[in-house]
Amino acid sequence: MKYYDYRNAPSPRKVRLFIAEKGIEISTIEVDLRALAQHKPEFIAKNPSGAVPMLELDDGTCLTESLAICHYLEQEFPQPNLMGIDAKEQALVLMWNDIQVFEGYLGIQEVLRNEHQAFKDRALGGPVPYTQIPALAERGRQRSEVFFDRLESRLAVSPFIASARFTYADIAGYVYLGFALRSLGQDPAATRPSIKRWSETIAARPAIKAAS
Amino acid sequence: MKYYDYRNAPSPRKVRLFIAEKGIEISTIEVDLRALAQHKPEFIAKNPSGAVPMLELDDGTCLTESLAICHYLEQEFPQPNLMGIDAKEQALVLMWNDIQVFEGYLGIQEVLRNEHQAFKDRALGGPVPYTQIPALAERGRQRSEVFFDRLESRLAVSPFIASARFTYADIAGYVYLGFALRSLGQDPAATRPSIKRWSETIAARPAIKAAS
Repeated sequence: MKYYDYRNAPSPRKVRLFIAEKGIEISTIEVDLRALAQHKPEFIAKNPSGAVPMLELDDGTCLTESLAICHYLEQEFPQPNLMGIDAKEQALVLMWNDIQVFEGYLGIQEVLRNEHQAFKDRALGGPVPYTQIPALAERGRQRSEVFFDRLESRLAVSPFIASARFTYADIAGYVYLGFALRSLGQDPAATRPSIKRWSETIAARPAIKAAS
Repeated sequence: MKYYDYRNAPSPRKVRLFIAEKGIEISTIEVDLRALAQHKPEFIAKNPSGAVPMLELDDGTCLTESLAICHYLEQEFPQPNLMGIDAKEQALVLMWNDIQVFEGYLGIQEVLRNEHQAFKDRALGGPVPYTQIPALAERGRQRSEVFFDRLESRLAVSPFIASARFTYADIAGYVYLGFALRSLGQDPAATRPSIKRWSETIAARPAIKAAS
């Protein structure tokens, strides 16, 4: 297997932290997104979305999308369990993953992609150019606030996001918190004590520290 | 278990077709989204996202998000297998689900939500109001074309979306094709022969016919 990574982007960071928590060693290739290496024909041939993360299996299959890659690794390396031990816990991990992606990540991404000069004409990922929409950056800030309020409510009644223990949903949430800090220029945990308590717990994990 | 549905929306339609393909009977409650029943306090208490689909388990747990619900049902009712038989096929189903959601569904939804009068001040789902952004409707049309071109390329080399056989990824794709037809006012299959061939195969399935 080969893992295609990029250290400064949230989606590959989720997979990198997942691999670290599993304690597995995978040969890793850094794809320089600043140099648009993900849009080169040889990369697009492996992943038409022009994005990382990507996991290339020994049979040549290229798995993309962070959830799919982590699910694959969970089946191949079951311990420690990170995606749920039974049907209900697995469903809660998937549910909180999607809630965080749709209500959190997309809004934060709208801010970064529609506001920063580095993403001019690249307001969406992938090889097709899209113009920035300033109103979308503004809406993204509003969505992000709503999302972190919801996460705060959740973490006020649960030690971790999906379950009473650490799972993939916490990796996703921790990565999105860091992504928000960078993209919004403010720390959502500063005014939300439950997120702060939880994020300090996650940050203190040895694998997270080593791979962040 | 109780299943909360709405017949005219794409996400609950995915779950409804999945339940039909499984051949299971679940007590179903229609939530009238036109009357904003999903924003009533008693519904928000069960699902703060204010949306269907939702599956209420016998212990009171409310599972939301279509992928999480279908994963749960796959574990409880393994036959017929719809989410993949091994790690690799399962990962491909999840991968093609996410590709279709991010590159297809979101763009189609941007058109509908930012263009139609029915969604004025509801440009995003859920109880928080968001103003429509006309430029986003326009961008959504462009994204949709790019997505259906990618799906056409995929279906030119594979009989089904994720695998050589029918899976959950085909249910998602079929639902998004119908959603595009309604939201964009044109049929993406009309100019794409592989999508047309595949969609006719899906439409002919007895469970799909019965539950559509």
